[in-house]
Amino acid sequence: MNETRVIRIRESILAENSARALDLRERLSSHGVTLLNLMSSPGSGKTSLILRTIEALRDRYSIAVVEADIDSTVDADRIAAVGIPAVQIETGGFCHVEAAMMEAAVTGMDLDALDLIILENVGNLICTAQHDTGAHLCVAILSFPEGDDKPLKYPIMFRAADAVIVNKTDYGELAEFDLEAARRRIEVLNPGAPLIPLSCRTGAGVDAWIAWLEPWIRSSSPGACEPQA
Amino acid sequence: MNETRVIRIRESILAENSARALDLRERLSSHGVTLLNLMSSPGSGKTSLILRTIEALRDRYSIAVVEADIDSTVDADRIAAVGIPAVQIETGGFCHVEAAMMEAAVTGMDLDALDLIILENVGNLICTAQHDTGAHLCVAILSFPEGDDKPLKYPIMFRAADAVIVNKTDYGELAEFDLEAARRRIEVLNPGAPLIPLSCRTGAGVDAWIAWLEPWIRSSSPGACEPQA
Repeated sequence: MNETRVIRIRESILAENSARALDLRERLSSHGVTLLNLMSSPGSGKTSLILRTIEALRDRYSIAVVEADIDSTVDADRIAAVGIPAVQIETGGFCHVEAAMMEAAVTGMDLDALDLIILENVGNLICTAQHDTGAHLCVAILSFPEGDDKPLKYPIMFRAADAVIVNKTDYGELAEFDLEAARRRIEVLNPGAPLIPLSCRTGAGVDAWIAWLEPWIRSSSPGACEPQA
Repeated sequence: MNETRVIRIRESILAENSARALDLRERLSSHGVTLLNLMSSPGSGKTSLILRTIEALRDRYSIAVVEADIDSTVDADRIAAVGIPAVQIETGGFCHVEAAMMEAAVTGMDLDALDLIILENVGNLICTAQHDTGAHLCVAILSFPEGDDKPLKYPIMFRAADAVIVNKTDYGELAEFDLEAARRRIEVLNPGAPLIPLSCRTGAGVDAWIAWLEPWIRSSSPGACEPQA
């Protein structure tokens, strides 16, 4: 068996948009608006979770959605189709959302009429977690087919999250996803962070997500987690 | 139905490591070494495909693997466990591999004794495709559970690939992945790029991948595709 040789490459400078993000967060708080930043790999179910969240909360809260993609309006169109205002950020080559992009996205929104803005970040398990968007809450989604080892390989994301959702539980044993192993790995990185297994396809577990989320709406206080270097 | 408002954010400057990548590519070619850059989202099956590729080709070619992760040696350890030399690049906060990292990774390798180096890039469907690593070939992996709409949302990757692998076909109908829709979407972005469906779990389709890859080994000529802006 060969030994693994390790080359460490010094971390690059991270975005210095923190002051701007702080301003945006305070501005939103002053209007009683909570900004939720949803992050995951491509295809983990961000849009599906937003649709489930809208379905559960739209009778009680006024919701808007900001969709970030490097290209296309596929997701924003899915949101707009259910009658919720959707703003599309086309990030061009950018792999993440920064505070300045969110400032642009909320321009023109009637903040006093809103309770919750959900940002669907770019599908990316790395860079998105490194940039403060001005959100009050950061939630990471992992899904059964991606594998339970992802917290080991993408620790930045799992440290940055206020809660971790494990989606696509309906894949069941076929996915060979060990929920307890994932839970232990996330607990090491982010002690006490709730892990919420659910299936956007079947709806199972969505209630627990809503029960976790709802107290944050209009609470005007940010979650405990911070963007990670 | 609400209309989707679109905000376009100008693309940032991309890495200027092209000259360095060109040098590395020429150097590898002069030693008869082909560098394959494997890219995908987290959990699409890069490591599993590398293990299948080693299994199929190790009797005929001398192979080394470079594993890039922001943290951990989980994947490199899986490769080393089957007796193939593995170099781990820890990118720190970097979400992609650049040519300078590959230069460091090949330092100390006996290039004259090697035929194929496989780079498992960081799990990221965006930034990885924007940076020339010095590879001769760029291959993208998409998997059934990620969904057939991903070429629409991550066009940069699918334009940059010499071939696209669709992994996890063993999930079958449960994944609701429309292979023909994916094929049409990729064809628009990257006319003529081969699409190779397979399952690393069952081994089905791996032969077609090997049949595509093998002529490139020792061919010393790069693939047609280029990193995309």
